[in-house]
Amino acid sequence: MSQTSQIIERLAAIVGAHEVLTGEAIGEDYTHDEALNLEPQMPVAVVKPGASEEVSLIMKTANELGVAVTARGAGTGLSGACVPKQGGIVVSFERMNKILEIDEENFVAVVEPGVCLDQLDVALAERGLVYPVYPGEYSASLGGNVNTNAGGMRAVKYGVTRHNVLGIEAVLADGSPIKSGGKLIKNSTGYDLTQLIIGSEGTLAIVTKAYLKLHPRPEHSATVLAPFATLDDVTQAIPKIVDSGIGPSMLEYIDLMTMHVMIEQLELKLGVSADIRAKALAYLVVQLENPIKARIEEDVVSLGEHLAELGAMEVYLLEPRAGREIIEAREKAFWLAKGNGANDIIDVVVPRASIAEFMQKVSAIAQETGSMIPGCGHAGDGNVHMGVFQPDPEKKSEVLRRIFQAGMDLGGAISGEHGLGVMKKPYFAELEDPVKIELMRNIKKAFDPKGILNPGTMFD
Amino acid sequence: MSQTSQIIERLAAIVGAHEVLTGEAIGEDYTHDEALNLEPQMPVAVVKPGASEEVSLIMKTANELGVAVTARGAGTGLSGACVPKQGGIVVSFERMNKILEIDEENFVAVVEPGVCLDQLDVALAERGLVYPVYPGEYSASLGGNVNTNAGGMRAVKYGVTRHNVLGIEAVLADGSPIKSGGKLIKNSTGYDLTQLIIGSEGTLAIVTKAYLKLHPRPEHSATVLAPFATLDDVTQAIPKIVDSGIGPSMLEYIDLMTMHVMIEQLELKLGVSADIRAKALAYLVVQLENPIKARIEEDVVSLGEHLAELGAMEVYLLEPRAGREIIEAREKAFWLAKGNGANDIIDVVVPRASIAEFMQKVSAIAQETGSMIPGCGHAGDGNVHMGVFQPDPEKKSEVLRRIFQAGMDLGGAISGEHGLGVMKKPYFAELEDPVKIELMRNIKKAFDPKGILNPGTMFD
Repeated sequence: MSQTSQIIERLAAIVGAHEVLTGEAIGEDYTHDEALNLEPQMPVAVVKPGASEEVSLIMKTANELGVAVTARGAGTGLSGACVPKQGGIVVSFERMNKILEIDEENFVAVVEPGVCLDQLDVALAERGLVYPVYPGEYSASLGGNVNTNAGGMRAVKYGVTRHNVLGIEAVLADGSPIKSGGKLIKNSTGYDLTQLIIGSEGTLAIVTKAYLKLHPRPEHSATVLAPFATLDDVTQAIPKIVDSGIGPSMLEYIDLMTMHVMIEQLELKLGVSADIRAKALAYLVVQLENPIKARIEEDVVSLGEHLAELGAMEVYLLEPRAGREIIEAREKAFWLAKGNGANDIIDVVVPRASIAEFMQKVSAIAQETGSMIPGCGHAGDGNVHMGVFQPDPEKKSEVLRRIFQAGMDLGGAISGEHGLGVMKKPYFAELEDPVKIELMRNIKKAFDPKGILNPGTMFD
Repeated sequence: MSQTSQIIERLAAIVGAHEVLTGEAIGEDYTHDEALNLEPQMPVAVVKPGASEEVSLIMKTANELGVAVTARGAGTGLSGACVPKQGGIVVSFERMNKILEIDEENFVAVVEPGVCLDQLDVALAERGLVYPVYPGEYSASLGGNVNTNAGGMRAVKYGVTRHNVLGIEAVLADGSPIKSGGKLIKNSTGYDLTQLIIGSEGTLAIVTKAYLKLHPRPEHSATVLAPFATLDDVTQAIPKIVDSGIGPSMLEYIDLMTMHVMIEQLELKLGVSADIRAKALAYLVVQLENPIKARIEEDVVSLGEHLAELGAMEVYLLEPRAGREIIEAREKAFWLAKGNGANDIIDVVVPRASIAEFMQKVSAIAQETGSMIPGCGHAGDGNVHMGVFQPDPEKKSEVLRRIFQAGMDLGGAISGEHGLGVMKKPYFAELEDPVKIELMRNIKKAFDPKGILNPGTMFD
């Protein structure tokens, strides 16, 4: 019996033959994620476990046979971390999609990895609670979010995934299940395996359960839009707003090109006059939240005064519908960039105060290479999302390398939330300290001596 | 030349002979931390580097000679993590005590490991900023805080050390320096070495610099004290207060015995009537903060209503001086317990909603073993600090084992913030999942193949 038939037979014995897809039954969706320009890859099989015990048996089998295993949630990643490996299998969590518990006393939700953000949000909204990590894509799975350490617009107030996951259950490469953390706010008992596995892109363990920190759902919110004459003005305003004590829940900048596309293609009605639109080079979007309505109103006034002092050309308190629309448009920026033919999407992070300097460098790189690089970003976090329009592959690589280098020179990092996957792996290998990469490789070996967990992701 | 003389000579060549203490020049302080009942241990030498380059050379030498290295900050730990190893050296950070930068644009302080919390707080107060991690002991060093993942009373609002350290610089076992993270709010670029090293008690790397997240310093605060008839009433009130949206910055419970000692020995004047004192079995202390004075006043009223509804026997808004005093007294609870002859101090963490059940189990254990186990704790975090009064060493071990087991049975962990050190190592070895301990050992080997970094701490 060939190794392939052996794998398939043994997987079928674990989950049932109908939960193992092979050959043409493997839908095209399983061969890629949303990263642009990556070669799709057919796995040997897609297996759909229904419980963590099945995941254990799958890993035991894969480890014994030396088969590469790629975990897959909703496939919305942007770096190719869940693209199957040649000769490998995909463990798809579409059946493990249950919200196991919403514990209102401990403010914790316990979920399976296949639960999607919107599914969780609907369940939490009913109870006046929120899981505040909102990356743009609500169809993303929690398993994927944990593995890429997803961020999003609310990180400026609530932090990213790693700040909101209190514990995990996971299956190690050899099939052993472990539990790390749980319904605990703090823990100083041994190395923090939870934090190490978060953001490890499926290379250290397979997450089978996550304990998520919940927050009271703020009842009132307001969205303010402020056009500025320069991006410099925007970025200089940021620390002052953070320092004001108003505590915004979102603090986003949108550049001229991106705003233009949003207004034209999504038909946003923001009430910005043609005159201002002609002069503004960048926009700041600020969302405030508060459980008490009167305080939001006071805070909007105070924010408006701050923004005016900081050089905003105008301050618009958006109607609730327009507020929702601009935030949705901001979430869809990736799809707009993709739809308009972007050749790559990146999300460099730099110290917040260095955004202006970083963007000047990006502008220079764009000009020097004849590329178009529009962007928007989590200004409060220094996390800049850019579409790179440069059809020549070699030139594009050069553009990316130079942008990553520029970010790192400012004390930043290649990715703020999308992860490295396979797409950014070569740049990481080239630009990161080799001592750290070697250390990461050794950590990987400590978890996965045979190298079967998503091999070739993050580093070779 | 003996190995000892060789080490001493080489260390002297790195830092200068006057920065290496040996023999009788080694003060008694270097032989222990604040853990109760641990055997002090003399190191071969205490070396005081002045810069990270010197730390690199020290580690290179120690690695080559196979000498155990224990890093030491202020020595205020409670688990014996900085007790020297036999035949080993101590790297004391008393000279590396500079605040290198307070970056007001990025809200980041960059500090050397020997900087103490009070030193940092004075510098930040001048600028209207705060580093919000407040474990009881302000003379503690930031290096020690990072290595034990220190917590404290404000964790309910701001999280613990791991949520407030954005990056570190560290020296690996072989002397290689690395930088992980930095002035970055988020980062999804490879494994999070920062988070792995935080809480690793000096066993993975020597931290030489920390990037700390700062917050605006809240201008107004208020402290409310509420006596309750039972501990059950207190713990049932907690989730309701967290859910109310008031967002307390501290949420502490103090049991009858501890409150009695605080009032009598520290002469606290809280205005609690003799009648209430006779009936109250537990107290809740709630601190509120706000940049806007009027809001604090509103929140105090709202909190008072909540507490009354939740069964508080009385609600006292403390005068500012009394508010400060009760918080200071709470911070000093360890010293009170020590002064009164406690045989051990522990800090089990359980899910917040399980505190009452946990404390019932502790009561039963106390009764069954003839021990006295008074406590107080970070009720908002489920983190219970207890003094264990049981002079018989064997019986005491049994008490600790049973308390840890009771906490773990409720989904908790042995330590919320003090760490394992050497003191809790045997219990960890006995009670923790051996698969996880093996994994931690493998991680340790990935960082430190020769096992020279604080060997025998956390696990053997």
